[in-house]
Parts: sequence; C-alpha cells; structure tokens
Amino acid sequence: MRTDTHTTVGVLRQAVADFVNDRDWRPFHTPKNLSMSIAIEAAELMERFQWLMPEEARAAVEDSTEQAAIADELADVIIYCLSLSNALDLDISSAVLSKLQTNESRYPADQFRGRFRRPERER
Amino acid sequence: MRTDTHTTVGVLRQAVADFVNDRDWRPFHTPKNLSMSIAIEAAELMERFQWLMPEEARAAVEDSTEQAAIADELADVIIYCLSLSNALDLDISSAVLSKLQTNESRYPADQFRGRFRRPERER
Amino acid sequence: MRTDTHTTVGVLRQAVADFVNDRDWRPFHTPKNLSMSIAIEAAELMERFQWLMPEEARAAVEDSTEQAAIADELADVIIYCLSLSNALDLDISSAVLSKLQTNESRYPADQFRGRFRRPERER
Amino acid sequence: MRTDTHTTVGVLRQAVADFVNDRDWRPFHTPKNLSMSIAIEAAELMERFQWLMPEEARAAVEDSTEQAAIADELADVIIYCLSLSNALDLDISSAVLSKLQTNESRYPADQFRGRFRRPERER
Repeated sequence: MRTDTHTTVGVLRQAVADFVNDRDWRPFHTPKNLSMSIAIEAAELMERFQWLMPEEARAAVEDSTEQAAIADELADVIIYCLSLSNALDLDISSAVLSKLQTNESRYPADQFRGRFRRPERER
Repeated sequence: MRTDTHTTVGVLRQAVADFVNDRDWRPFHTPKNLSMSIAIEAAELMERFQWLMPEEARAAVEDSTEQAAIADELADVIIYCLSLSNALDLDISSAVLSKLQTNESRYPADQFRGRFRRPERER
Repeated sequence: MRTDTHTTVGVLRQAVADFVNDRDWRPFHTPKNLSMSIAIEAAELMERFQWLMPEEARAAVEDSTEQAAIADELADVIIYCLSLSNALDLDISSAVLSKLQTNESRYPADQFRGRFRRPERER
Repeated sequence: MRTDTHTTVGVLRQAVADFVNDRDWRPFHTPKNLSMSIAIEAAELMERFQWLMPEEARAAVEDSTEQAAIADELADVIIYCLSLSNALDLDISSAVLSKLQTNESRYPADQFRGRFRRPERER
C-alpha cells in the first residue's frame, strides 16, 4: 500500500481538480461525459484480461510490465471518478463507507463465510 | 470534501478488504472478474444520465435524491477499483499521481488553457 | 439500407463463424469472453462521442470520415454479438422481435406518443 | 439459426424504427445517447457471467432459463445497434462484411490456425 497509507482521498481529488482547471476542461467534464469516460476507461482495463484463460490471467498479473499497464488503466478509471466527485461535490469516503455498510446487511457475512457462495447480485 | 480531507486511500482499501475477506469472496475477486465488475458498475452509473439532455442532466444533479443515487453508483465503481488494487497489491495513490504527471506532458496546460480545446485522446 | 434490405442475419453469422473457425479461435470465443468483447467494443464506439457537445455530435455524424469510423466501431460490436449467437446457437431475429414485443406492452405507444416522454427504464 | 436464415437485417431495422417512431423517441435516440445505451446493455449482458468460473459459465449456458435471459440481454444490445444504424443511416451488412475483410488481412488465417494463438489486438 506504500503511499496509500498516508495519502488522503482529498489530496488526489485536488490533484485532479488542478489538472482539469489548468486546461480549462471543466466545461467538458460534465457528469454525463464523465460517466461515459469512466466506462470507457473501465473497458480499456478489461481489455488487459479479454482473452486470457484464468490461469493465464494469474500469470499475467505477476509480470511487472503487465502490472504497470494495469495500474495505468486503473489510474485512468479512478482519475475520472475523482473528477466526477469534484464536479458534483460528492464525498467519496462517506459514499464508499456507507455503501459498504448497506452491503453488510444485504450480504450477512455468516451466510457466505466458508460456503464458497458468491454475491448473487452484489449491488 | 468533508471526510475526504482526512480519510486515506489505505483506510478505504482496508474496509473493502475486510468486507471481502469476511465473506470468503477472494476466490471470486480475480483481476479478470473485478475488471468486469468495474465496467458493469460504470454502466449503472452511466444509466443515471442515459436519456438526459444536457440541461436536464444539470438539473438532475441538483436534486438531492438523484445525487444520493449517483453517489451510490459511484461508490460501487470505486469499491471494485479498491478491491482490484488489493488483489494486485497496487498502490492507487502513486498510480494516480504518476498518471497525472504523464498527462501533464502529454497535454501541456498552455496548449489548452483559454482555448476551449478538449482532450482529443485523453489517455 | 442498401445491402441490409437483402442480407439475412444468417449470412452475417456465417461470415463471422468462418472467420473465427479459420483461425481456430473458438476456444477463446467463450460466452464470458465474448460478453467482455462486446462491452469493450461498445466503449470504443462511445469514445467517438465522449467529449462532444450535442450540436457537435450532430455535426460530427455528417462528416463522412467520422461516419466511416463510427460504422467501423459499430461493426466490431455487432461482429462479437454475432459470434456470441453462434457460440450459444441463439437465434438473433427471434430474440430481437420477441424483445420488441415485450417492450410494446411495457411501453404502450399511446402513453409516449406526442408527449416528449422518454423511456424511464427501457429494459 | 432458424429464423435468422431468412430474416434480413433490413426487416429488423424497420421493426426497431417503427417501435421508436411510434413513441416519438427519435429526439432521445441521438447517436451519443445510443452509444451509451449499447454500452449499458452490453454491461447487463456481461453481468450474466460476472462471477462464474469458466466451467460454471459453460454449464450456465446449457440451462434453458439462463439461455433465455442471455438472449434477452443480447437482444437489447442489438436493438440499440439497429437504432444507431437507423439514426445514422448506416448499412450494417456492408460495415460488418468490410470489417471482416480488413480483419482477414490483419490476422492472416495461416498465422493463427492450429497454433492456439489468440487475437492480440482484435480490432
């Protein structure tokens, strides 16, 4: 986790806000466009795994070049998520923690633990 | 930003890791499956804006019920991003900050500022 | 519509089947991988419209180079749809026509016609 | 293939055009919105396979209830593809056949056949 342990979400949001503002890109960063952008980058992330058999996917993620490529695509997804939270003034930390709490009651741990039972509809 | 100003990425990653581990879901949270999950949740987020005209989209995000729904969908995207970073032991903060740096040189601010010029290929 | 008026879905499915078989790609064209591929190509199609304001999107589609690029991306989406129908031996025509029939009763025409009322949840 | 062998793409396009026109939905079916809709439905299709292990995915598609659900989601993707081709007056058959031809030379069959070698960048 290295820097994740001491970097706040707010610091990352500010870095993205500065990047967008420095280029006068706010008019383009509408919520609708950002939701498309998140989906587009998510697809590029998926593309890293598109044709891999499960065992190959496992091997791929051991490879450091491939790891860097995945980190790069994941960063794109997250950057647009941060920009959307900026555009809408949404607090990511509370959204995430409160969603986990909702999911806690929707998927009680004792109904899943030790049962090899997956989230039927995890949302 | 409220809690984002003092919540580290690491704290959110740990909350997601606990949630997944408490249900023995790690075998399902493979990188390939997680990349699909991020894309699926991104699509649900997009769905909030699917048919809206730009001015309507602007009005929608003022509405507090709609804001909560958007926050909820965005949280789902981010939760899977956090789970992927856990599965691959990727440091999100450094990935994001280093990607912004790459983008700094790819899209020099002075070529965009004040020109109403959008990112042709922002990635 | 030119050739669409006399080309059957079956002819297109066969062309895709031949292409896949000629390369021994059937082991990779699993339903799961194909569903990912459809989503990936759909995102590339979206990318053509990612940052455009509505009036710009309208202008873009008048441009013949842009039209060709869109046709190309749409073809990719449809090719994978055809490959999935081949992999699962699904009849596309009946699936489409029967889904339209379901939607007929779900969205009765007289509740929408002339009302500028959009499909709230068109699915 | 049953009805696919004698149903033209034009017939399906017309059925979708009628459905859209009967509800006065053309103003909403802009190319940008339709590209989002294709991606959204593609994600719902993916959701059928989200957490399945490969062997499970294989079993799932044998199940007739699951098959019907997949056919239904695939139909949604294709219906929006047909609507986009209507909105842009694109000929699907020629787009698909010409894309396959491009791919023929990009992925020469003899470099793949019998080699268990997948499309590195199949687009």
